[in-house]
Amino acid sequence: MCELLAMSANVPTDIVFSFTGLVERGGVTGPHVDGWGITFYEGKGSRTFKDACPSSQSHVAQLIKSYPIKSEIVISHIRQANRGCVSLENTHPFTRELWGRYWTYAHNGQLSDYQNKFTLGRFQAVGDTDSEMAFCWILEQVVAKFGDTPPENMDEVFIYIASLADEIRQLGVFNMILSDGIDLMAYCTNNLCHITRRAPFGKATLIDTDVVIDFQKETTPDDVVTVIATRPLTNNEQWQVLSPGDWRLFRKGNIRLSHSVEK
Amino acid sequence: MCELLAMSANVPTDIVFSFTGLVERGGVTGPHVDGWGITFYEGKGSRTFKDACPSSQSHVAQLIKSYPIKSEIVISHIRQANRGCVSLENTHPFTRELWGRYWTYAHNGQLSDYQNKFTLGRFQAVGDTDSEMAFCWILEQVVAKFGDTPPENMDEVFIYIASLADEIRQLGVFNMILSDGIDLMAYCTNNLCHITRRAPFGKATLIDTDVVIDFQKETTPDDVVTVIATRPLTNNEQWQVLSPGDWRLFRKGNIRLSHSVEK
Repeated sequence: MCELLAMSANVPTDIVFSFTGLVERGGVTGPHVDGWGITFYEGKGSRTFKDACPSSQSHVAQLIKSYPIKSEIVISHIRQANRGCVSLENTHPFTRELWGRYWTYAHNGQLSDYQNKFTLGRFQAVGDTDSEMAFCWILEQVVAKFGDTPPENMDEVFIYIASLADEIRQLGVFNMILSDGIDLMAYCTNNLCHITRRAPFGKATLIDTDVVIDFQKETTPDDVVTVIATRPLTNNEQWQVLSPGDWRLFRKGNIRLSHSVEK
Repeated sequence: MCELLAMSANVPTDIVFSFTGLVERGGVTGPHVDGWGITFYEGKGSRTFKDACPSSQSHVAQLIKSYPIKSEIVISHIRQANRGCVSLENTHPFTRELWGRYWTYAHNGQLSDYQNKFTLGRFQAVGDTDSEMAFCWILEQVVAKFGDTPPENMDEVFIYIASLADEIRQLGVFNMILSDGIDLMAYCTNNLCHITRRAPFGKATLIDTDVVIDFQKETTPDDVVTVIATRPLTNNEQWQVLSPGDWRLFRKGNIRLSHSVEK
């Protein structure tokens, strides 16, 4: 499988601390050696760094750890290949433009019998993963429903995407992170959790490597920063664990929409 | 204006030498301080590094100079803003997916009265440059003509794109680099030149900084590497200078299609 990491914040924030924990899972504390990638939104623009080699050995990952890029939305993924070979075109996150925005997506999980479902036309996969096909299919459905201009209320779009994710989840494990550069969506099938840090800030200790951060020193009192991950990255904080079918929509670090499946 | 750099090669080749010359023009020997970017194709995949700060001061550019990424197609651009503010979303190269391929584009020049011409629907600009709008308009026209699947002979597509570039050139200066990951197109309005290096390889000296390379030591006898640039990057080689309306299509370092305007 793979590991996901994402961030939504109300001020441009660097993700060096969390990313430092994640990359250890790419070959040191975890088996996810088949590539990694990270997308930073800066305003309407975005940039993605990716490598088809293990994150723990990647020159580019070293840069990301040493050069704090400040961003309000980040999506990252480290890969353990199941569907599709190890190659740059199969490395998450994937990005497509729709409605004059860059949509970025990463998936953890594995799908079966998806070829017939994911009929594609306008959006086509470049690589050969189930993940990228699912992303393209979602965008196809969104365009089929809403057309070439977005509705006034973007919540409608994300609620519709959640219903599409419910369908995809019938085909296997589908933990998804998706953003249009404004909102950040997290959809859970089995492994996804999140934490929101706000004042008063404390210290946090990474699980995967020997690093402690004092957020008090790195933040201002108004900062709100949510981090989403496959598994908790720190061992002294309370992460919220999502249940199958749960999803959240974050904007500027805060929950904007929350859906929890009744138990 | 801006400066363009591109490469087409028959073996994965690093562009560190040429890029080292280019980045000097981003704040040292040239005035192009409003961002820079570089796209590497590796197989069907591609990755783009970009920064809205001057290339000569960029941490990410330092990485590209020190970490040789081997690629068969590279497109790079350093920006001196004329249309559109200095921001990541306005930083070239731009990429869109079409027909299951990543199309990457960079533009040098400036257009006028383009708003009415560039009516967009499926492909929309994220930033506010004339360059990105021209790119989206080209893709719109290509889809309008060829539909959701590419023709068997991709030459038809590039010949059609050249006719679109002829139209755009009526609006101002349009020097363009475009690739679908297989072919690399160079279209000239006023400043574009290229050089093809093949055996026997010699030495080359950069104009913009004190670097000499002996390609003999870096290559094998079968290598064919074409470099395209706004202005020659070396002072001891013979660069081919394109005339207004000229264009070339390169594949694996060799010219595949060549169009020269009659003089």
